Amino acid sequence: MSETLQRLAEIIESRKLANGGDPEKSYVARLFAKGDDAILKKIGEEATETVMAAKDARVDGDVSHVLYECADLWFHSMIMLAQFDLTPQDVLDELARREGLSGIEEKANRKLLAREQHEADQDKI
Amino acid sequence: MSETLQRLAEIIESRKLANGGDPEKSYVARLFAKGDDAILKKIGEEATETVMAAKDARVDGDVSHVLYECADLWFHSMIMLAQFDLTPQDVLDELARREGLSGIEEKANRKLLAREQHEADQDKI
Amino acid sequence: MSETLQRLAEIIESRKLANGGDPEKSYVARLFAKGDDAILKKIGEEATETVMAAKDARVDGDVSHVLYECADLWFHSMIMLAQFDLTPQDVLDELARREGLSGIEEKANRKLLAREQHEADQDKI
Amino acid sequence: MSETLQRLAEIIESRKLANGGDPEKSYVARLFAKGDDAILKKIGEEATETVMAAKDARVDGDVSHVLYECADLWFHSMIMLAQFDLTPQDVLDELARREGLSGIEEKANRKLLAREQHEADQDKI
Repeated sequence: MSETLQRLAEIIESRKLANGGDPEKSYVARLFAKGDDAILKKIGEEATETVMAAKDARVDGDVSHVLYECADLWFHSMIMLAQFDLTPQDVLDELARREGLSGIEEKANRKLLAREQHEADQDKI
Repeated sequence: MSETLQRLAEIIESRKLANGGDPEKSYVARLFAKGDDAILKKIGEEATETVMAAKDARVDGDVSHVLYECADLWFHSMIMLAQFDLTPQDVLDELARREGLSGIEEKANRKLLAREQHEADQDKI
Repeated sequence: MSETLQRLAEIIESRKLANGGDPEKSYVARLFAKGDDAILKKIGEEATETVMAAKDARVDGDVSHVLYECADLWFHSMIMLAQFDLTPQDVLDELARREGLSGIEEKANRKLLAREQHEADQDKI
Repeated sequence: MSETLQRLAEIIESRKLANGGDPEKSYVARLFAKGDDAILKKIGEEATETVMAAKDARVDGDVSHVLYECADLWFHSMIMLAQFDLTPQDVLDELARREGLSGIEEKANRKLLAREQHEADQDKI
């Protein structure tokens, strides 16, 4: 795994209350103290901010906010993973398990084709 | 960077139309062909699906869908990054630049404190 | 209640499978047949599309897509309400119950101030 | 239009800075003062909270939070509409223009069928 993801995951893990994380001193510990909904709400927020940053970048040509918001999205994704005792390595394994992009695409295409077939079966209007 | 992210980024890059990606054969090339909005819409969709999977996991104890949806969220984030000529390494650099979680938390806390101060200045009701 | 909301709510209600809705002929019946997650996913999708339409409107001055996507967001909200045996009138009552905007704002401000106080108590970094 | 929506829209309109809205006293005026992104971010947030409330309602049987969050979503949608000089009546007109649900469904089905056709044309993998 990337050293940065590894290090971040370790620090996030150390912020869990059970590991001595202090909500008075740490933003991550505070999110853990608030629980699932506070963390999940951040996923929705950061996704929206990423979308807005990308729209702005097309107008002003400045991609730095896209990068910044995407980093925030991944960062809060990692807090969510930790909340469910998962790690970024698990995500990377899942991505690798799909065996390269062709595998991912195959899956995505299968899903798409299955949905289309399903809907084609149903759409009679 | 993680080998998986590196490999994925390369495959995604190769799916750009300018690099010979074929929308008839590739899901990623198809997203590139559709453009910004189709890609950004996926960010919103995958974030929502991640949140729903996490809520389900609390009920049925099965975290595999959380992992699966988070992988989808990261995967589509990478397509968005490529669309703006950014790489996952840029995101990792941004995360590292914040100098470990303490740095990230410092930033998050600064933002939070600034907002609170700002709002405290304004809230007179 | 607005006649349009009333009429829409009735048609949506009639599309429930228990009321004879036919997934082969009706988009709404199809969503009901798919269940909660399909409906909730649409809430996330339409919210994202509304945000994108609003960003576009600032650039091209055309607000028609904002209107269109907001209508889609409200429409799918109404399907969700029906899925939980709620009606748009319930939403209007909740809005009215907050006793005019001053009431809503009071609530929003209380929530904001409570959060700020809570966070101020915790932020020691 | 529903009296509640009408009244809410008028109060929201009065909170615009140009109409004398005071960000120090009013939550809505404060959102107007912050501008587009602050308002749009709320759309994403409230959509996420609505989805979470709906997932919770399936577990604990309490639909009151679904109602509450949906009211928040509509309320912030109305602030966004006002920000773009649109009204809830415009949304109701758009919903009515689709000529009852059959019209909406027809449109939704056309969109779905068009997408399926488009994708079927492209999917060769």
